[in-house]
Amino acid sequence: MREVAILGVGQVPVREHWDLSIRQLAVAAGRAAMADAGVTQVDALYVSNMTSGELNQQRHLGALVADHLGLWGTEAVKLEAACGSAGSAMRQGIIAIASGEMDVVLVVGVEKMTETPGKATTAALVTAADADYETPHGVTFVGLNALIMQRYLHEYGYKHSDFAPFPMNAHANGAKNPNAMFQEPISLKTYERGRMIADPINLYDASPIGDGAAALLLVPAEKAPHAVRVAGSASATDTLAIHDREEPLWLKAAEQSAQRAYAQAGIGPADLDLFELHDAFSIMAALSLEACGFAEPGQGVRLAQEGAILPDGRIPICTMGGLKARGHPVGATGLYQLAEATLQLRGDAGAAQIDGARIAMTQNIGGSGATIVTHILRKA
Amino acid sequence: MREVAILGVGQVPVREHWDLSIRQLAVAAGRAAMADAGVTQVDALYVSNMTSGELNQQRHLGALVADHLGLWGTEAVKLEAACGSAGSAMRQGIIAIASGEMDVVLVVGVEKMTETPGKATTAALVTAADADYETPHGVTFVGLNALIMQRYLHEYGYKHSDFAPFPMNAHANGAKNPNAMFQEPISLKTYERGRMIADPINLYDASPIGDGAAALLLVPAEKAPHAVRVAGSASATDTLAIHDREEPLWLKAAEQSAQRAYAQAGIGPADLDLFELHDAFSIMAALSLEACGFAEPGQGVRLAQEGAILPDGRIPICTMGGLKARGHPVGATGLYQLAEATLQLRGDAGAAQIDGARIAMTQNIGGSGATIVTHILRKA
Repeated sequence: MREVAILGVGQVPVREHWDLSIRQLAVAAGRAAMADAGVTQVDALYVSNMTSGELNQQRHLGALVADHLGLWGTEAVKLEAACGSAGSAMRQGIIAIASGEMDVVLVVGVEKMTETPGKATTAALVTAADADYETPHGVTFVGLNALIMQRYLHEYGYKHSDFAPFPMNAHANGAKNPNAMFQEPISLKTYERGRMIADPINLYDASPIGDGAAALLLVPAEKAPHAVRVAGSASATDTLAIHDREEPLWLKAAEQSAQRAYAQAGIGPADLDLFELHDAFSIMAALSLEACGFAEPGQGVRLAQEGAILPDGRIPICTMGGLKARGHPVGATGLYQLAEATLQLRGDAGAAQIDGARIAMTQNIGGSGATIVTHILRKA
Repeated sequence: MREVAILGVGQVPVREHWDLSIRQLAVAAGRAAMADAGVTQVDALYVSNMTSGELNQQRHLGALVADHLGLWGTEAVKLEAACGSAGSAMRQGIIAIASGEMDVVLVVGVEKMTETPGKATTAALVTAADADYETPHGVTFVGLNALIMQRYLHEYGYKHSDFAPFPMNAHANGAKNPNAMFQEPISLKTYERGRMIADPINLYDASPIGDGAAALLLVPAEKAPHAVRVAGSASATDTLAIHDREEPLWLKAAEQSAQRAYAQAGIGPADLDLFELHDAFSIMAALSLEACGFAEPGQGVRLAQEGAILPDGRIPICTMGGLKARGHPVGATGLYQLAEATLQLRGDAGAAQIDGARIAMTQNIGGSGATIVTHILRKA
């Protein structure tokens, strides 16, 4: 299998883009990645998205985006794994290059969520959960994560404000990323006074929906000796319904995919310079740190309290705002994470730059941990 | 790249399965393919589906199907390219095996369309078309195809009943397939008296929606010396909106993907023993035959009238009923086509068997020709 390199990066700032359609968002990111890489044709296009059927009355995004990028004839398809869609699309792009089947692959993640009536977005998001055994009870997707957080607080004896370091770090870092939806730091008091969404998840524990698109242009590493390399790529699943798991506080698919990626890259957690994790909710940040080997079970919050997750800490996370401050256009998020990690390894992360970053990990989660995709990138 | 073989086939009969959920349909087909191949574990699962978000309030089918097949931990993702979803999923499965990344891949296509309120299914299907430039005019998906058929009648001087050989062949063949939704031949009179759906498409020109699932189990060919081989696999796109095409009566993506598949297999149209084409509408059958080199433009209908498409003809099509009689559970259809072609090459097609079949082609179309995936299979 051939090694894969990331030659181009494109991002649309995450916003409420009421003036841009889903095709315009995707095309803007795809075009930016192609321009960044200096290519005008690709062998295949992988698009990721979750909710365009309901929210934009538009499926068939592979053909749509190929068409409006001017890539007529190009093979194209859409991939979906709930909020883990973009990581999954990246994984297929990597396999396509590694196989020798393709030499130039564009991966575009897009989601347009804000221009919809009433509760359509909430209804679309809960399709990530089990429609027969979870959703019929009336629980929302935030509600499911609230149950997990409640259990964590109970099991390990934390109080709600112990989670403050996660959103405070994310918002402080988002302030340094022009593509972030929220670019202002928040104080401990702001966090503690946050409006309750689904007890114990308050406004600052939940990532915001948004409109956005991010894209990467992939080539074989031998064609791009100075480009950032994919050192590890793995995906794993867990039960869809949380009640089917032996231990609801352990992200088994995070552990499995991270262990495979570590093995491929020949490294361990201590070798990482930064970790773009999936902080859709504060509790998910803690659980990811634990499952990926940075803290013992129940100690992810402690790690954050010790400052290890800050830009100058032992394992900086969400260095450009994470899902919490950059925003979470669900089917694009995994590619924003990869784009940000790539910029960090290039030294192009601006005010958010982690000095001397050489190895980065990204982790994209679909549902409440049912699909987890982990990538490790390294400087050439 | 490694050659790929199809070691297992699984199908659920296409019906209105009001007693089976989408998970049960998918699991039944997946389990059947695994049992047929004699495997109990897989390295990756690719699921195809189009409309489960709206129609079943269930996304995240990769993780769902892996979970309920007992494949905990296994990498899984869903692919979508409208009605070309299943062919696209097969293509990724092939690339994953060919790359050396995977040794055992399960591909499952599933769609549950009949248990939905009012016009929900029609609304879900039109998301295959352009939501900004086609759908807002009020056209349905059948309506778009009716415009193409009308143009064909006008351009080449045919009358509606000239299309009769397509549905008559499909229904005669479906009568020999226990998995087909309709298992009765139809007469010319029945065809001509068919209720009009969208002029000139009548009831017998349009394939029926249905609930179904089909699955294939893929391995490297060196591991299965007697299994059916994938000799060609290619996908291409065209403009999403029909009005953007230079020639709306030419399926350019069918031509492109078929030419690539022919080149990979080292054969031409004359070498094929059967062709499972995408007769979602009678007009699409004619256009596919023309674009794939079996007839000149405007002569696809003539070819059918000459009997070339019959089981004993020059190029038998829809040998087990096609979309028209087997039924068209949209996101599963491409895998039904591949399953049927595999059974033909194994000699396991029962009453529908094409004697001495050695090489078969399948073609799966998304939208009105915007995504077209072509596969060529051959006997080991």
